[in-house]
Amino acid sequence: MMTAQDLKTIIRDIPDFPKKGIIFKDITPVLKHPDAFRYVVDRITEEFKHKNIDKIVGIESRGFIFSPVLAYKMGLGFVPVRKKGKLPYKTHQESYELEYGQAVLEIHSDALEPGSRVMIVDDLLATGGTALAAARLVEKLGAKVEQFAFLVELDFLNGRKKLSGYDVFSLIHY
Amino acid sequence: MMTAQDLKTIIRDIPDFPKKGIIFKDITPVLKHPDAFRYVVDRITEEFKHKNIDKIVGIESRGFIFSPVLAYKMGLGFVPVRKKGKLPYKTHQESYELEYGQAVLEIHSDALEPGSRVMIVDDLLATGGTALAAARLVEKLGAKVEQFAFLVELDFLNGRKKLSGYDVFSLIHY
Repeated sequence: MMTAQDLKTIIRDIPDFPKKGIIFKDITPVLKHPDAFRYVVDRITEEFKHKNIDKIVGIESRGFIFSPVLAYKMGLGFVPVRKKGKLPYKTHQESYELEYGQAVLEIHSDALEPGSRVMIVDDLLATGGTALAAARLVEKLGAKVEQFAFLVELDFLNGRKKLSGYDVFSLIHY
Repeated sequence: MMTAQDLKTIIRDIPDFPKKGIIFKDITPVLKHPDAFRYVVDRITEEFKHKNIDKIVGIESRGFIFSPVLAYKMGLGFVPVRKKGKLPYKTHQESYELEYGQAVLEIHSDALEPGSRVMIVDDLLATGGTALAAARLVEKLGAKVEQFAFLVELDFLNGRKKLSGYDVFSLIHY
């Protein structure tokens, strides 16, 4: 029987990626490991199956890995939030700050019905900038962010503070 | 009860995306539709559950949407193939031709055991260049491409010919 603590022994530290001084949390060993992968999906599903969520929103690219599995498992539709220029139909846009400059996320304008109750899923909560931009896109469509779910949260970057007012769940904390 | 033909009525044509003269097949309405999404996953699982596959390889970014769900459903591990510079650990690389210039795909050097039997999953088979590069990465690790699975195949681009020698399955053809 797997635990969240076991996941920490499977996730691997990569020093100096993507740049000097950063220790990157590499989740690919979790994905490769059928029991660990299943544990993450089942654990998050169990946590929120009674929460009356009706759509799962996933953020490109690594956020696409767990979010569609959760959508499948919970019997819900999946809506991608993508980087600028990738979605083919009419979109709403939201820009957010990066360390240097800005980036833009988009959602299809018809992706969510007004009043939908959404869970936004990503692999990692760092500073929370991307997650907050995704929430604003959901809200621009008149839908409600019922829950955020992350595999990993880097507590020292205070992303949870940026998402104050939202319900935030992370399976593992560093 | 959904059929592959129903999926064709849900997938939407976007003219002139990503550029003039291309009709883009937008699968986001399939993802959003819980029954259509479930049908795709269950249909592909059913097709290959007896095939003794032991890893699912998905290609960034849209290939990440169905492939992890298939891995979960089939009880297998998931291995991402990503664009250059995105994977944090040691990688093998493979370049392939785009319409203008080249692109590079990578896989983690420890992602597959030699002898593993792999299914490579992507949303769309067009010219087959990306899929072939992914196959070569799998083979560089000493693993075997047992199967390709796509949601959509654009028959007129002859991607299947580029993948000759491999088993190729597509749920929908145009």
